[in-house]
Amino acid sequence: MGKVRNVLFIMCDQLRADHLSCAGHPTLKTPSIDSLARRGVLFPQAYVQSGVCGPSRMSYYTGRYVFSHGATWNRVPLSVRERTIGDYLRPAGLRVALAGKTHVLPDTEGLERYGIEGGSALAALMRAGRFEELDRYDGHSPPGEESGYAAYLRAQGYNSDDPWSDYVISADGPDGQPASGWHMRNVHLPARVAEEHSETAYMTREAMRFVEDMGDRPWFLHLSYVKPHWPYMAPAPYHAMYGADDALPLNRDESEWKDQHPVLAAYRRHEESVSFQRPEAPGLVRPAYMGLIKQLDDWLGRLFAQLEKLGRLDDTLILFTADHGDFLGDHWLGEKEMFYEEALRVPFIVCDPDPAADATRGTVDRRFVEAVDVVPTCLAALGQPSYDHLVEGRSLLPLLRGGAVETWRDAVFSELDYSFREARQMLGRKPQDCRAMMVRTERWKYVWWQDFRPMLFDLANDPRELRDLGADPAHAAVRGEMEERLGAWLKGRKTRVTVDDAYVAARTASHKKHGIFFGVW
Amino acid sequence: MGKVRNVLFIMCDQLRADHLSCAGHPTLKTPSIDSLARRGVLFPQAYVQSGVCGPSRMSYYTGRYVFSHGATWNRVPLSVRERTIGDYLRPAGLRVALAGKTHVLPDTEGLERYGIEGGSALAALMRAGRFEELDRYDGHSPPGEESGYAAYLRAQGYNSDDPWSDYVISADGPDGQPASGWHMRNVHLPARVAEEHSETAYMTREAMRFVEDMGDRPWFLHLSYVKPHWPYMAPAPYHAMYGADDALPLNRDESEWKDQHPVLAAYRRHEESVSFQRPEAPGLVRPAYMGLIKQLDDWLGRLFAQLEKLGRLDDTLILFTADHGDFLGDHWLGEKEMFYEEALRVPFIVCDPDPAADATRGTVDRRFVEAVDVVPTCLAALGQPSYDHLVEGRSLLPLLRGGAVETWRDAVFSELDYSFREARQMLGRKPQDCRAMMVRTERWKYVWWQDFRPMLFDLANDPRELRDLGADPAHAAVRGEMEERLGAWLKGRKTRVTVDDAYVAARTASHKKHGIFFGVW
Repeated sequence: MGKVRNVLFIMCDQLRADHLSCAGHPTLKTPSIDSLARRGVLFPQAYVQSGVCGPSRMSYYTGRYVFSHGATWNRVPLSVRERTIGDYLRPAGLRVALAGKTHVLPDTEGLERYGIEGGSALAALMRAGRFEELDRYDGHSPPGEESGYAAYLRAQGYNSDDPWSDYVISADGPDGQPASGWHMRNVHLPARVAEEHSETAYMTREAMRFVEDMGDRPWFLHLSYVKPHWPYMAPAPYHAMYGADDALPLNRDESEWKDQHPVLAAYRRHEESVSFQRPEAPGLVRPAYMGLIKQLDDWLGRLFAQLEKLGRLDDTLILFTADHGDFLGDHWLGEKEMFYEEALRVPFIVCDPDPAADATRGTVDRRFVEAVDVVPTCLAALGQPSYDHLVEGRSLLPLLRGGAVETWRDAVFSELDYSFREARQMLGRKPQDCRAMMVRTERWKYVWWQDFRPMLFDLANDPRELRDLGADPAHAAVRGEMEERLGAWLKGRKTRVTVDDAYVAARTASHKKHGIFFGVW
Repeated sequence: MGKVRNVLFIMCDQLRADHLSCAGHPTLKTPSIDSLARRGVLFPQAYVQSGVCGPSRMSYYTGRYVFSHGATWNRVPLSVRERTIGDYLRPAGLRVALAGKTHVLPDTEGLERYGIEGGSALAALMRAGRFEELDRYDGHSPPGEESGYAAYLRAQGYNSDDPWSDYVISADGPDGQPASGWHMRNVHLPARVAEEHSETAYMTREAMRFVEDMGDRPWFLHLSYVKPHWPYMAPAPYHAMYGADDALPLNRDESEWKDQHPVLAAYRRHEESVSFQRPEAPGLVRPAYMGLIKQLDDWLGRLFAQLEKLGRLDDTLILFTADHGDFLGDHWLGEKEMFYEEALRVPFIVCDPDPAADATRGTVDRRFVEAVDVVPTCLAALGQPSYDHLVEGRSLLPLLRGGAVETWRDAVFSELDYSFREARQMLGRKPQDCRAMMVRTERWKYVWWQDFRPMLFDLANDPRELRDLGADPAHAAVRGEMEERLGAWLKGRKTRVTVDDAYVAARTASHKKHGIFFGVW
């Protein structure tokens, strides 16, 4: 093991924290990911800054909370003003590459305003969140021109204009008709794509090719899988590896329907929630979801073996995480977005090859981690400046290397803008009026909702979050304290984005140096 | 009178709300400005978003609070991401011109990052906050290349490399040596520049030339005077028009030195405060300050006469205001920045030529106005879109035109970042840790200070703000309420800057239209 020269930042899409054997899943075995935890540190209390792909990822890529980067939901472009890990690491001489998904939408208005031309390299980088896209594929629509996957599939004999829809997320139905993976009722069937041609296989090979090609030159690779995100259809043999009995017990209770928070009630009326409320749904979908994770773990095993063979395990910082979880029927919900643990808590493993981290290998660190910590951790590991006038997370390096950490955070924060969701229409609200912010401490989870009552959960006495105390008179004081925490956090957002702290320090009380003599008698 | 086709946005620099005869000043007569108030509406409760030039002006130009636009102090560039009145009005076919000061610093890092070339028209506009600079002159240093003022002075016979320093802000000292206006002890002397060649005269003529040249073509002109800002040196005869007896009584009390707030205590040790604490200072400086205002009023009279002659009073919305006030020794302070009324309350007059505003002419409207209201008022008056996903102020048009206004704001907000000031060093603080935020209601003024106790003033019982109740146990509940207001305000900041509300509305629950069928059973 040695000094960090490269970073492998692995993200799964919609992977819950509890769906790994190293995190305690009783039937789903993930030995490759577990091996990473053995060589590194597992952080079981890691939280995302938003329970939905876009804003969560933008926090991972910028190191900034959603309130600061402003990409509040999946369809909101990241402002070209925001800097990402690509901006920070490219000047340091690393190739900053992407294989897979980012969910970055181009800030077309911004680019037009700055006169940045469509065909230029700058425009391409700006449109891509400053990742060099080896193969960009977001996974919820047929792969487009920025991916080679469709052409690859056709070359393997999947003859179709849209081989993704026709093979990758399709099965052969019992009546001989194609059965689409968009229908959750079909996801117990095997995909029509061979396992070795599936999305997970394809993107892992893209990553392996990049690592091989790079040789000894330094790199940052974001390997960003589109699975186990819906469509939940897994290729054989993974589609049938697990049954309903292998799934975790459902975390839901009839009592949750009583005195529901208005926004939660609306989300429970969304189609994905209604589908997961069907008695047969969780037992059918969860095994497919588990199969997709098992497949991921197998491919990660191949990637890790290659890294070992090339000596890259010795100089590569590896981070493994997800952009958010998945309810899979818990709390009578499908999808994510609401602030329950199933959506916001994610797997988080960091493997630091530096000998200074030897003492923590294989340990579990229960301190709070947030998605915004990824950027500062990478910057610190690579010996780069901290850009801390912009970056809002904290480097995990002192935790990994057992350094003295005087104080660590005692709360994590997450946000939601539900303006693009049907819930907004159900509740008759305007796009600007659909905000929510969460603060979670060791004991409490508090959610502020714009114009609605807050939510409050006592995680010590109700770890499954079944009893919302948001309207309970006995907990008014706790809500007040949590609201104060939220206010204090908001006031600390890093809004002075054009100049850094050194600039300020160099110009403090310096007016006389600049020929300005105000105040002199 | 008729429909609004043009906007004249007049700003004075550092002009207190109480230094106009229409606002009740007993000895300083400002008939020209008073005539505007007679033809329009005077808003005596108008507040700036920060008590210092840069951030206050950026709020005037963007319609956004400091927390949103991020230019937290004078030396912080406005991010090129932010849109200003120039971005909004230029596409509507108006020339958006500047004569005078903006305090916009170019976002050089942003421009470089976007590859915007120095010589281009786009770069020039971006560097200038999207104003077309007829003559740009910020007034606290010798005029640079973006102003014709130095060349003008030389053409008038003021032979010097730096005629501003040598003539405009200099007097002949009693010993025959030049006496600089940088020394406040000299500002009872007449400037060495003739009145008709002074800054106020020069810039008014620039404005008059523009108005004449434009004829019937529509325009937005920001006439932005650098006076009565320091250096306080006035040309004859204005330097001697007032004496110490004409000045408003000092608003300060010995009791204010007791239990001072730590940041306030540091500001009172700044050179400008120490100078104003000299017994002779207010009586010497205030008359010069008044003379500069009197001169402004005389030149505005000439401008208004020209507008009348050209028929422009009939189709031009005129706004008159300032970027902040000046303590002039009140509260034992010089300059501004602290949250007292003397610094944050500004003159604010709007004269709307539309016949719909006839009913309110000459009235006084005590509802709260904020600097962020200027952009939306101009947009509404010119029939432009409201851009309300970005703009955080409210149009004053319904107030001017006597429309039904269901609810109006019951509080105003202001912010400070004192990281560039000596106070930071005195207090041993880091650049990120120097924030303050104020909320002022009809009754209370509350200031949150990062890591220090808050301030609280009871404006009903202590309108002069002499008793800080920030640590008074009897007022804990009030402080709690005000803190809640601040939190609620912060949560409403407009962070989703890349797409507007119509974009959100068009894409709400629209995934199926885009071929995405998640959640379907």
